[in-house]
Amino acid sequence: MSRRKKSHQSHGTANRPRLWGKHAVSAALDNPNRKVLRAWATRDASTFMQFPKDLPVTLADVADLGRLVPHDAPHQGVVIEVEPLEDAWLDDLLHDASERSVLLVLDQVTDPHNVGAILRSTAAFGAVGIVTQDRHSPPESGALAKAASGALERVPWVRVVNLARALEEIGEAGFWRIGLAGDADTDLKDALGPQRVALVLGAEGAGLRPNTRDHCDAVARLPITEAIESLNVSNAAAVALYAASVS
Amino acid sequence: MSRRKKSHQSHGTANRPRLWGKHAVSAALDNPNRKVLRAWATRDASTFMQFPKDLPVTLADVADLGRLVPHDAPHQGVVIEVEPLEDAWLDDLLHDASERSVLLVLDQVTDPHNVGAILRSTAAFGAVGIVTQDRHSPPESGALAKAASGALERVPWVRVVNLARALEEIGEAGFWRIGLAGDADTDLKDALGPQRVALVLGAEGAGLRPNTRDHCDAVARLPITEAIESLNVSNAAAVALYAASVS
Repeated sequence: MSRRKKSHQSHGTANRPRLWGKHAVSAALDNPNRKVLRAWATRDASTFMQFPKDLPVTLADVADLGRLVPHDAPHQGVVIEVEPLEDAWLDDLLHDASERSVLLVLDQVTDPHNVGAILRSTAAFGAVGIVTQDRHSPPESGALAKAASGALERVPWVRVVNLARALEEIGEAGFWRIGLAGDADTDLKDALGPQRVALVLGAEGAGLRPNTRDHCDAVARLPITEAIESLNVSNAAAVALYAASVS
Repeated sequence: MSRRKKSHQSHGTANRPRLWGKHAVSAALDNPNRKVLRAWATRDASTFMQFPKDLPVTLADVADLGRLVPHDAPHQGVVIEVEPLEDAWLDDLLHDASERSVLLVLDQVTDPHNVGAILRSTAAFGAVGIVTQDRHSPPESGALAKAASGALERVPWVRVVNLARALEEIGEAGFWRIGLAGDADTDLKDALGPQRVALVLGAEGAGLRPNTRDHCDAVARLPITEAIESLNVSNAAAVALYAASVS
């Protein structure tokens, strides 16, 4: 039922998502690999957004824009309809990665706000990209792009069919694969070494699937107290990316 | 207009918020300082939730519960109506804090999901509590409690009228007040010392207000790249709390 409801309320489609918010839209307009199909903007927003001359732009008021996006979405006066980006390829990502690269692997993290925030942190800490399983990761959407604050356009995102197989390739490329798990004995900072690292995070609650965990070289935990079961997954990713960047 | 719209769509009120989700509801039921007024639950959820005998519980189906909470909220089969917690007092918090305490101060962070996730990270890293300005922080709500995943019930939350005055008291209590700012020259880990620390975070975009910044002993930055302007504020808080906990 929730699926039908979502489909009924979608604003834009998976094939033609709508993005909104100044950072997300500016980054999309700046991305040569992003095909932008049309735009709607308030008069005010249209003066400061750098729309290409050949892009169809419809002037609209705030309430009209509100109807183009999901309930209460903070569109900041500008909405665009786009084509999804081409997927990045794992081979390319691994081939181009430098010596001290950090890669993020997400095992069935589906919430678009979390994945968006994780893309933002991935860009912030200079990690080389994210890898997700195609069937259990969110499509590009306005909410995801807004949470990514421009990083959706800049961070290579590899979607794979088989995450275990991808982890094998990642290992073969010299990445030390560390799975984050609350029940691990090792502290993350002690598991980090001088080599390339792939940080593997599972969904909140479920955690890493056994087969994913089996494809890691080590499992490690973040140093949190007993007061709470876990961090929000985007917070855990940010802390792990930070820890890897200062190790 | 957005204010009217929100009021129209509220489910529960600021005086009697509704909380939902298993972690948030369990933690509220376990909190002796939380007055729970009534509950709604699916038959399934009612069997595993530990409702007190004297609490009025209404059995309801998933769709009925969906009407008690905002649009698409993941209620997980259980909703309660509660009275807000009594505010914690700054004097008590400062008095009870141990030698190596970490305190989080939020300058006008208003998004309930972010504040909820920050409460969760505050509990996770064993910080003593959070301080916000009463007029520019979100009230208790279901979305905030859900994001806090139980931490709303466990983390002391001080709401003050005047944040600058509160920072003076915090400084007098021996806390080294570090404001997080993207334009700071010092890296956070170099600003942390052996003493008690108060981490002061501003809203995304706006950052710290000048008067808040003036009431800090130091300003410091997280080591992020140029690729992105800033982290999500709850991600920044998590990283800062982690950095303080390992320093």
